[in-house]
Amino acid sequence: MSERTIDFWFDFASTYSYPAMMRMEPLARAGGVTVRLRPFLLGPIFQAQGWPTSPFNLYPAKGQNMWRDLERLCADLEIPFRRPANFPQNSLLAARIALVGLDDTWGAEFCRSVFRAEFADDGRIDDEALLSEILSGLQVAPERALDAATSDANKTRLRSQTEEAQKLGIFGAPSFVTADAEVFWGNDRLERALTWARDGR
Amino acid sequence: MSERTIDFWFDFASTYSYPAMMRMEPLARAGGVTVRLRPFLLGPIFQAQGWPTSPFNLYPAKGQNMWRDLERLCADLEIPFRRPANFPQNSLLAARIALVGLDDTWGAEFCRSVFRAEFADDGRIDDEALLSEILSGLQVAPERALDAATSDANKTRLRSQTEEAQKLGIFGAPSFVTADAEVFWGNDRLERALTWARDGR
Repeated sequence: MSERTIDFWFDFASTYSYPAMMRMEPLARAGGVTVRLRPFLLGPIFQAQGWPTSPFNLYPAKGQNMWRDLERLCADLEIPFRRPANFPQNSLLAARIALVGLDDTWGAEFCRSVFRAEFADDGRIDDEALLSEILSGLQVAPERALDAATSDANKTRLRSQTEEAQKLGIFGAPSFVTADAEVFWGNDRLERALTWARDGR
Repeated sequence: MSERTIDFWFDFASTYSYPAMMRMEPLARAGGVTVRLRPFLLGPIFQAQGWPTSPFNLYPAKGQNMWRDLERLCADLEIPFRRPANFPQNSLLAARIALVGLDDTWGAEFCRSVFRAEFADDGRIDDEALLSEILSGLQVAPERALDAATSDANKTRLRSQTEEAQKLGIFGAPSFVTADAEVFWGNDRLERALTWARDGR
């Protein structure tokens, strides 16, 4: 990792990862910072903390506030938002495909499309048909991408990413990690993570 | 509550209430918004969620990130910060005194002094001697303030404030509530709560 780089750790199931993903590219470009997208799974990390599901479901007052906050936030950012009927969604297959795409040229756009499908269009991102449609829209052959995504090597890779996230002390998403290992948690910290990457402090 | 007003709900034990309290006044003045300080106790609200102590202690990765984040944040804001040896502290007596002061002229300055003692000077805010010293510094007779603070009527009042917070859906501190009942949670949302109070959206 060069100095002016951040790792952007996210889970497709994570609500605040949505605005962070949608606004990341122009901010990073303006700050002269390269962002490496690192999909991982929050599920195992939540389970290790004793949470069988999202804390937003476990703690209803917190959850209610989050949905309203996200709605206000997306309105402010002029990002489309519609509260999904199902939350949290199973992000496993989408994350596996993202890993394949991020080795190729279509990773970032795939990530944005998945988030948009989930949080703007109430799509089911665990639905292979929806993911295939997104891939086709990006001129990617779905069958080939899905084969690569579900290969043993790629499954292991996603598991390793999640373990790496946990070792870094990541406990929520999005999280931004600089080259000198500063961990910034939450969409609210994206700007500060970028200036840290640029200035080293 | 007039339209251009927000209620600023805080607990002296809450870490992010510290920067919010320290930066609130100039921001509110600039925005033309009146802020009403509403001390309450997070303890009963946390207990109702099944947490015997602060989630920052229950979930070490989250706690570690919070302390580092708070340190960075205070540095950015040029607010003194020193991680207290004891966390969370018992904020009961300080909150009771604050209620008395907020009926008088010295409430806001008392609140800032308590937060400073706790998060900049590693003081014990459950220590009557420290609180008396703060009161004396504000030209308030400690014994009289302490008597008023520990009266049955004032104890009941603090309990009512906490119940009101819970009814509003407050689950953490600081929280900002506008006249039209929008709840904004967290130091990060202070600016947005103020613009909402000003613009009604």
